[in-house]
Amino acid sequence: MVNLSGKVIHRLTLYHCILKYTLINQERVSSFEIADLLNLDDSQVRKDIALCGVLGRKKQGYATKDLKRAIEKKLGFQQRKEVFIIGAGHLAMALTNYTDFNDYAIDILCLFDNNPNKIGQEINGKKILPLEKLPNLISRVNIKNIILTVPPEQAQSVTDYAVQCGVQFIWNFTPTVLKVPTNVKVYYENIISSFMQMHQETITIPSVKADKKTS
Amino acid sequence: MVNLSGKVIHRLTLYHCILKYTLINQERVSSFEIADLLNLDDSQVRKDIALCGVLGRKKQGYATKDLKRAIEKKLGFQQRKEVFIIGAGHLAMALTNYTDFNDYAIDILCLFDNNPNKIGQEINGKKILPLEKLPNLISRVNIKNIILTVPPEQAQSVTDYAVQCGVQFIWNFTPTVLKVPTNVKVYYENIISSFMQMHQETITIPSVKADKKTS
Repeated sequence: MVNLSGKVIHRLTLYHCILKYTLINQERVSSFEIADLLNLDDSQVRKDIALCGVLGRKKQGYATKDLKRAIEKKLGFQQRKEVFIIGAGHLAMALTNYTDFNDYAIDILCLFDNNPNKIGQEINGKKILPLEKLPNLISRVNIKNIILTVPPEQAQSVTDYAVQCGVQFIWNFTPTVLKVPTNVKVYYENIISSFMQMHQETITIPSVKADKKTS
Repeated sequence: MVNLSGKVIHRLTLYHCILKYTLINQERVSSFEIADLLNLDDSQVRKDIALCGVLGRKKQGYATKDLKRAIEKKLGFQQRKEVFIIGAGHLAMALTNYTDFNDYAIDILCLFDNNPNKIGQEINGKKILPLEKLPNLISRVNIKNIILTVPPEQAQSVTDYAVQCGVQFIWNFTPTVLKVPTNVKVYYENIISSFMQMHQETITIPSVKADKKTS
């Protein structure tokens, strides 16, 4: 078994989105077209695609459907991934209603919250359960993934509880950096960081010779 | 002027989150504590922090408040960033209700949609306007940033329209890869890619000698 780096996974996922939405009507697609859309080098695109076991033909490119399927297989899109969401607020509602999750076999089983007004309600057919039911359900369904969307102040205590219950992957949508044991993996979905990265060219950093052109 | 790389911005944003939430009650914080929380090398943390013009004292670390303020200054958290949201669905609702945006001076002015049932409504005090008002408002308020949360099939046509109106930064929460002119920057908030990266260790990739265990 070979692992892919995060960057390769990110690029392959975007190639897949191109085949799924942007160039969906083309029978064939070239590495140049993909590279152009993402501001990448076309040799990089061919290298990534070769990792999926697909080789393009010179001047003919790749068959769109075959390439799409190869990426899906390589990234395991078809393998079912069951998740619980902890924290049933606005973001949880958006994620639970996110239809694209179906295409990637990401299956939100239910949500947890400690607000009595929310417990028992449903979002898009998924039940909101009291947090105290988490340990029992984790062991019954053998869930390893949670999506964390609680308020930042509660993130650490909820994480401690979830880890005790056996959770191994935490997809953290809160801005809180979490203390976890080494066997638990946290992925930080930090949207502020994204926004700042998008703006990196407009961030002005005075250096020794800085002038006042940027405002 | 010197730019920071996306990676440095991402790390500094997470350090800031640590100072804001995780270690908020400590008067001083060391590079080792920050490194430990993020599984980083402590020398990396010191190097990043030095970019903000802050030097720690040996065995005493950094004053938490000063370091927090220095990162905020370096990343321009206090500079007002006005944005429009296009597409007033569940995700737009979550973003409009995201109170943390205030701390980073990200100001959602209003939302746009072409669904007559949504137009005129408000989310957290922000009005939903018809898409046709976008050009006029962009030129009046001089907005450069949009958050795109429309259905994937509409993403390209809405982008074409927004770019015509003068938008320069597109924070793209749709899975669609967008064709834009070279002067327009798209940041892909691709959550499927995030989920796959979190799981990279569990993705099984058949190599030449692969057997049929993966299903």
